[in-house]
Amino acid sequence: MRRVVIGVMGAGDNARPGDVAMALELGEAIARENWVLLSGGRNAGIMDAVNRGAKKSGGLTIGVVPGHDKRALSDAVDVGIVTGMGSARNYINVLSSDVVVACGQGGAGTASEIALALKSSRPVILLNDRPESQRYFAAIGGSLVHATDSVAATISTIRSLLDKS
Amino acid sequence: MRRVVIGVMGAGDNARPGDVAMALELGEAIARENWVLLSGGRNAGIMDAVNRGAKKSGGLTIGVVPGHDKRALSDAVDVGIVTGMGSARNYINVLSSDVVVACGQGGAGTASEIALALKSSRPVILLNDRPESQRYFAAIGGSLVHATDSVAATISTIRSLLDKS
Amino acid sequence: MRRVVIGVMGAGDNARPGDVAMALELGEAIARENWVLLSGGRNAGIMDAVNRGAKKSGGLTIGVVPGHDKRALSDAVDVGIVTGMGSARNYINVLSSDVVVACGQGGAGTASEIALALKSSRPVILLNDRPESQRYFAAIGGSLVHATDSVAATISTIRSLLDKS
Amino acid sequence: MRRVVIGVMGAGDNARPGDVAMALELGEAIARENWVLLSGGRNAGIMDAVNRGAKKSGGLTIGVVPGHDKRALSDAVDVGIVTGMGSARNYINVLSSDVVVACGQGGAGTASEIALALKSSRPVILLNDRPESQRYFAAIGGSLVHATDSVAATISTIRSLLDKS
Repeated sequence: MRRVVIGVMGAGDNARPGDVAMALELGEAIARENWVLLSGGRNAGIMDAVNRGAKKSGGLTIGVVPGHDKRALSDAVDVGIVTGMGSARNYINVLSSDVVVACGQGGAGTASEIALALKSSRPVILLNDRPESQRYFAAIGGSLVHATDSVAATISTIRSLLDKS
Repeated sequence: MRRVVIGVMGAGDNARPGDVAMALELGEAIARENWVLLSGGRNAGIMDAVNRGAKKSGGLTIGVVPGHDKRALSDAVDVGIVTGMGSARNYINVLSSDVVVACGQGGAGTASEIALALKSSRPVILLNDRPESQRYFAAIGGSLVHATDSVAATISTIRSLLDKS
Repeated sequence: MRRVVIGVMGAGDNARPGDVAMALELGEAIARENWVLLSGGRNAGIMDAVNRGAKKSGGLTIGVVPGHDKRALSDAVDVGIVTGMGSARNYINVLSSDVVVACGQGGAGTASEIALALKSSRPVILLNDRPESQRYFAAIGGSLVHATDSVAATISTIRSLLDKS
Repeated sequence: MRRVVIGVMGAGDNARPGDVAMALELGEAIARENWVLLSGGRNAGIMDAVNRGAKKSGGLTIGVVPGHDKRALSDAVDVGIVTGMGSARNYINVLSSDVVVACGQGGAGTASEIALALKSSRPVILLNDRPESQRYFAAIGGSLVHATDSVAATISTIRSLLDKS
């Protein structure tokens, strides 16, 4: 009965418009699969968009925030997990996710989530990430790292990763 | 649209049978109110019972576990939040809860959750806790601390706390 | 060659003057024993006083702060450990301490440190704590809990605990 | 009076022999500058070597371990900070360091420390890291990222970063 949890990570205030549009579409697709969406939960960038997308398809959204209360949460988050732990919450994001998707060109926060996921043996999908990121994480993460360039390919990769686990 | 989250804390392996029965009833009542149940998530004692109760009423259950994977989760938890942080996860339990209920006579883990809730200004209900606990937490927590002796009184106290917040 | 670490916990802004004076004396005594002093590190109350005492005896002082930088540290802290984790740093305080001393009548933060220490099987000394605290923690902590009413008795209790470990 | 803290991060069990030798030399040089050495503290790879180097020069060494006790600490660590938080301790490592040095070709754990340091605006020196790492972190970290290829250049870069701060 345990629900499958897909974590989507990405930039907050500095997210690129194209990446935000893709996050919206990704959230919709994740919810259509009946997977729970987990994200950093803030009301900004990829985090906000992917949650809004998931709610369009009626999904369940969990947001794990770095601060001490629920005020920073995206309105599209159903359940807020409040950590009060700053970026240490990034560790919780990836440990709680059956598959981690880094959506678009993220910054240092997203980089830490990819790295912590690999350290904890969680599979990571880099969706439209920068080439430098793909090369680096392929070098340190080996077969845990997957690169995709569309929402459809990402969903298909998640499905095949879940089948194996 | 944000869901109300009620945190229920209590003993794991050393829970008393009467407290476990009460936790089952409490979980049922929380879910009937359409509140999300958050707990320490482990497959033991109060944590397991309160989740099983909530699922009997069709509720949504979130379990925040101390370890590095989902194997220790109660089967009645829908969404596992995996922290890998040992008892530091107790801080997350209380920050994420709009009201914290300590169910029955807890041990040191529950004591830390009550204390961390008070430190973070979260209201706490002591349901059938030992007299020493009630006296101590009244001394350090003042008006944040409430004591009840039945599930019905607990639900009613939660309702009035939510109305004020 | 590993140094012995004694953790001293206590109130910050609300510390009572008598407890602050005792913390100063306790810090001096800990440093004279050549034990490293670990505390919550903030520039307030018991934390500040115990560090100032330890520096009077030439001790080494470690301060583990809840915030994101070193600005909140007591001037008497040699090495600041910056956690950015709020009160979750209380768990680190007690895990890192060979013996934990709760100095004076603490509030909810200190209560959480006593509870987390007991949960993690660290011995705790309650130095001049309130009677309600002594009764409660004796009920949940058993033989891990010791009560003292002077710095001399505290040092002597630490010595005997270190001999056993 | 606050001591300067230099954090050195790097591989544990998979460290390359040349990187381990360099870590030993780096530890010696850091201690000669009278800076406190902070590391992940484990008895393996870069962590162990840099601490042994620092002790050869009589330095003070702090080890921040992921586990629940001090057994995994390098013998060359003076003061163990025990977090019980797994890789979430990586956040503490970088927040506590005035400058962060990634020594040699690290794995995913080191990658997370570099990323968390950049996220928290701590300057990072990549000492003999792989080219993919230099390109990636330059892309996301901008002027916070420095690359060096010798211990002497690393010490000189640290000095100039401390002068500016």
